[in-house]
Amino acid sequence: MSNSLKRLLIGRPLHNEEMVREKLPKWKAMSIFSSDPLSSIGYGPEQIVLILTVPWAIAYGYAWMVAVAIIALLGIVTLSYTQVAQANPGGGGSYSVAKKNLGETAALTAAAALFVDYILTVAVSISSGTDAIVSAFPVLSDYRMSLNLFVLFGILMLINLRGVRESSNAFVFPTYAFIFGILALVASGFYHISSSNSVIIPQTSLERQPLDWTLLYLVLRAFASGCSSMTGVEAISNGVPMFKPPEVRNAQLTTYWMSSILVVMFSGITLLILHNHLVPVKNVTMLSQLAEATFGRSSMYYFIQFATMLVLYLAANTAYNGLPPLLSLLARDRYMPRYLSARGDRLTFHNGIILLSIIAAVFITIFHGNTEHLISLYALGVFLSFTIAQAGMVVHWRREKKTGWVPRAFLNGLGAVVTGIVVVIIMVAKFLYGAWLILLVIPLLIYMFKRINRHYEDIRAQLALPPDQITSSAEGSNIVIVPVAGVTRVVASTLNYAKKISERIVAVFVATDEESARKVKEKWQSWNPGVRLIVLYSPHRAVTAPLFRFIEKVERKKGPDDYITILIPEFETKEWWHRLLHNQTGFLLRTLLVFRKNVVVTVVPYRLEK
Amino acid sequence: MSNSLKRLLIGRPLHNEEMVREKLPKWKAMSIFSSDPLSSIGYGPEQIVLILTVPWAIAYGYAWMVAVAIIALLGIVTLSYTQVAQANPGGGGSYSVAKKNLGETAALTAAAALFVDYILTVAVSISSGTDAIVSAFPVLSDYRMSLNLFVLFGILMLINLRGVRESSNAFVFPTYAFIFGILALVASGFYHISSSNSVIIPQTSLERQPLDWTLLYLVLRAFASGCSSMTGVEAISNGVPMFKPPEVRNAQLTTYWMSSILVVMFSGITLLILHNHLVPVKNVTMLSQLAEATFGRSSMYYFIQFATMLVLYLAANTAYNGLPPLLSLLARDRYMPRYLSARGDRLTFHNGIILLSIIAAVFITIFHGNTEHLISLYALGVFLSFTIAQAGMVVHWRREKKTGWVPRAFLNGLGAVVTGIVVVIIMVAKFLYGAWLILLVIPLLIYMFKRINRHYEDIRAQLALPPDQITSSAEGSNIVIVPVAGVTRVVASTLNYAKKISERIVAVFVATDEESARKVKEKWQSWNPGVRLIVLYSPHRAVTAPLFRFIEKVERKKGPDDYITILIPEFETKEWWHRLLHNQTGFLLRTLLVFRKNVVVTVVPYRLEK
Repeated sequence: MSNSLKRLLIGRPLHNEEMVREKLPKWKAMSIFSSDPLSSIGYGPEQIVLILTVPWAIAYGYAWMVAVAIIALLGIVTLSYTQVAQANPGGGGSYSVAKKNLGETAALTAAAALFVDYILTVAVSISSGTDAIVSAFPVLSDYRMSLNLFVLFGILMLINLRGVRESSNAFVFPTYAFIFGILALVASGFYHISSSNSVIIPQTSLERQPLDWTLLYLVLRAFASGCSSMTGVEAISNGVPMFKPPEVRNAQLTTYWMSSILVVMFSGITLLILHNHLVPVKNVTMLSQLAEATFGRSSMYYFIQFATMLVLYLAANTAYNGLPPLLSLLARDRYMPRYLSARGDRLTFHNGIILLSIIAAVFITIFHGNTEHLISLYALGVFLSFTIAQAGMVVHWRREKKTGWVPRAFLNGLGAVVTGIVVVIIMVAKFLYGAWLILLVIPLLIYMFKRINRHYEDIRAQLALPPDQITSSAEGSNIVIVPVAGVTRVVASTLNYAKKISERIVAVFVATDEESARKVKEKWQSWNPGVRLIVLYSPHRAVTAPLFRFIEKVERKKGPDDYITILIPEFETKEWWHRLLHNQTGFLLRTLLVFRKNVVVTVVPYRLEK
Repeated sequence: MSNSLKRLLIGRPLHNEEMVREKLPKWKAMSIFSSDPLSSIGYGPEQIVLILTVPWAIAYGYAWMVAVAIIALLGIVTLSYTQVAQANPGGGGSYSVAKKNLGETAALTAAAALFVDYILTVAVSISSGTDAIVSAFPVLSDYRMSLNLFVLFGILMLINLRGVRESSNAFVFPTYAFIFGILALVASGFYHISSSNSVIIPQTSLERQPLDWTLLYLVLRAFASGCSSMTGVEAISNGVPMFKPPEVRNAQLTTYWMSSILVVMFSGITLLILHNHLVPVKNVTMLSQLAEATFGRSSMYYFIQFATMLVLYLAANTAYNGLPPLLSLLARDRYMPRYLSARGDRLTFHNGIILLSIIAAVFITIFHGNTEHLISLYALGVFLSFTIAQAGMVVHWRREKKTGWVPRAFLNGLGAVVTGIVVVIIMVAKFLYGAWLILLVIPLLIYMFKRINRHYEDIRAQLALPPDQITSSAEGSNIVIVPVAGVTRVVASTLNYAKKISERIVAVFVATDEESARKVKEKWQSWNPGVRLIVLYSPHRAVTAPLFRFIEKVERKKGPDDYITILIPEFETKEWWHRLLHNQTGFLLRTLLVFRKNVVVTVVPYRLEK
């Protein structure tokens, strides 16, 4: 039954040959890879303004400067990553680049940083997708958490367990709907401004307090939060093999397109927020305020809110395209449990998908789906992995030394330095707001990766067959000990099996009083099964301890190549509650004896009919 | 480590020969057996007055009539039970009497009724013991529940797991202290009254409304609650063998003594409550009010509260002397799981003791230690078992027909009729207040007893060896299937064992892709362990399903006397978390294959050193 439920939810098992390396046209690849950065328009500009409008220091006027800085940073990161795509046409992100060029620790640092950030991508995107729809329908605000968890487990996890082919088709619409909606909003907003004869940015939006240290800290925090808009820019360069040929060229073009659209949308929305002097309102996002100010509560307003919600949920899906393959790479390199690298029924990395869903759910639950708090943890990991990847690229160009490598190395070097500075800014500006947690988690993850790796190496060394391994010693025999609780059919059946596997068999009965000892001896003699019975008298009424001592005695007397097999007669009851009515000595013995060399514990089951 | 903790808490294991059937002198037996009925002075009179002082109908004046009825009832029950002691010198209460004289269903009804009431004895006594100490120290009222559960698990359960010998000595003091305290309270109260020239019962206490149906119902409820004072009267007749010879005579004398003391204490306290016109006060018991009115907050007051607390906790202990042996009788008759009849390390019925503690804890927790609510459930079971026992005695006397049997049978008959009427009164008066629950639980318990019995009978029939049982067939061999995951030392060690137990061995490898199939085949050939390897290709990447189908194929081809042994190579990791890094295919296979006839699953453990 659980099996047919599984089939209903995720579909029939797929044959190995059904794995197709789908080749995506640019317009489709764009919708899959760019939902993450583009959707950050849903919260990025808002986060900047949010921090700059804290009551005790109106620093609203610095917002445009922060925005400009972010756009410049985006330019540098975009150019750097088109070079990553070129140098790694086989795909694989910061982890692969770092492993190839910088060594294990850098690679694991990138992996840990990405691990944290993919999970936060899911948490942040789902939370703010729900914010978008709650803004349109305030009545939903009580169901925020249920909605978040339903989207996470009921939609994203299931779709991804079914497999990536379905997901790519279902997800083309929201991205373009969102781009259309936001561009319409920006165009319409600017048209209003130009037709109403007001200046595009009114003077009041540009007024600003003189910059002191407190204010600088605030501006840096706004910048750090705004950087969350840039997460996901690297996704295209990780997925080069999924493009139609010429893969690298197409991937680069798509990156340029994506960044251009992002710049237009980001600057347009930020300008309009400043122009309209929006301030934070509880349960209503600024994008919703802006759409309402521009279109009223028209169908266009609802279209924008729905599209925002969908594209944000889709952005969460990006992490599902990113983390499970990364985990499978880590698992193949033995830094994570091996089963994360196995493809399931549907050819997906199902264990990684489930792991990601569970950890994201933990984050959403702890932070009660509060986007602002989650964003405080966000972006640090991404920029750390940016820095590592760019640094790796510098090493790469230097080593290859192909023609024209110097400007390339310089561009990636610039990228590394700039993103490195951003990492420091984010660390300082957000330290108290949550970055400390990430700075704690990343080293712990690296430690975990290394411990797991060491364990697998230990196992490999211990399990490897030396070339001169003698396949088996002809010496030695098998001594069978059958603990019995009386003279029953179960015992008869067990002795029958015992005779098949050995000629040295002994039955053992532990008597807790003399009466029962006498009785069983008599019964055994009259039955006479051809096997010797040893009765152990246990005046303290313990059963396992005397048996255990007996086994140890046999162990001491046996030859070095002899095995001891403990055959436990056990009947399997028909109803689960029947188990409560019987002793579980077999289970106990197995647990106690599992660590002894050359001792094998076997339960010989006897099936009861009723 | 868990073992030394156990030793520290309950002591060293005891040898069978250390079981002494202790013979108790009357004064000591009294302290053990009578704490239950005597301690009910702590709540019994209060419960009567509590019900008769509900705001909308002051029926205070009926209290003394209720008290007189209870005293009369006590007289009848006492006399009836001295006869039970005489007829059953071997001990054993209502269950044994009913089984011998009335048959299975009556016996199980008595057992179910006692089961419920022993548990309620623990819950009620602990709760009102805590009430007594909370009355003296109101600051403890917030810790009521913690106190209840600590007394239950930390004191009663542990002491009883250690064994009854220790308990009997520790528990002599509280009973006599309590008797002394209450008698002093009564004497002092009466001295006050006589010296202050007031009439013993002032007229106002005797005024009463005319009796209508509502009031009658109230009076009956008061009577039903007051009957809780009588629980435990039967304890002595269950424990006749524990008395010094002449056992029966001594048990009877002790019963008379106990009842006399109970009558004096019960009537004295009830009269004083009426005389002082006490009404219920939150968090203060009436006994505490009375002691305070009589002695002030003197050391005598605190002595009485402490003694009351101790004797009530001791009364809870009575259930530990009663229920585990009853459960062991039921288990020996196969109405309860067999292990309830086994004596543990310390010669106690440890499983019954733990079971009683857990169920009592559930009741205390559900009712938040509210004595009044718990008492609503109480007494019904006891009187039901009284009735059954007395009815059984009538049958007993009729059958024996010894000289003078007619008056004896008449006395027990009277007891049966009177307690039967009380059962009906309790049922009606308390139905809505909780008796419905007990009326539901008792039949359910009886059903459970019978189901368990049927299961054991089924098992016995299925396990019994027919006299002509052929001990074992010489025919048939053992086919060994070794599922392997590669070529490792674990596999080598498993094959080594396989060769000890059979000559028909086959290794099976499930390949999820063609690459790994080829690799393993090559490795196997170059290793050449002398066992054939079959590679199953599983294009859907499932591992257990193809293996399972293979086993089924072998099963169809094997002879009827052949066994199939699945040997699973498994390495045992050293740290618990290492397990998370490996598949648990062995466990899965064992679970799936346990029900197949002549298929045995064996895990051959290989121990890792690090």
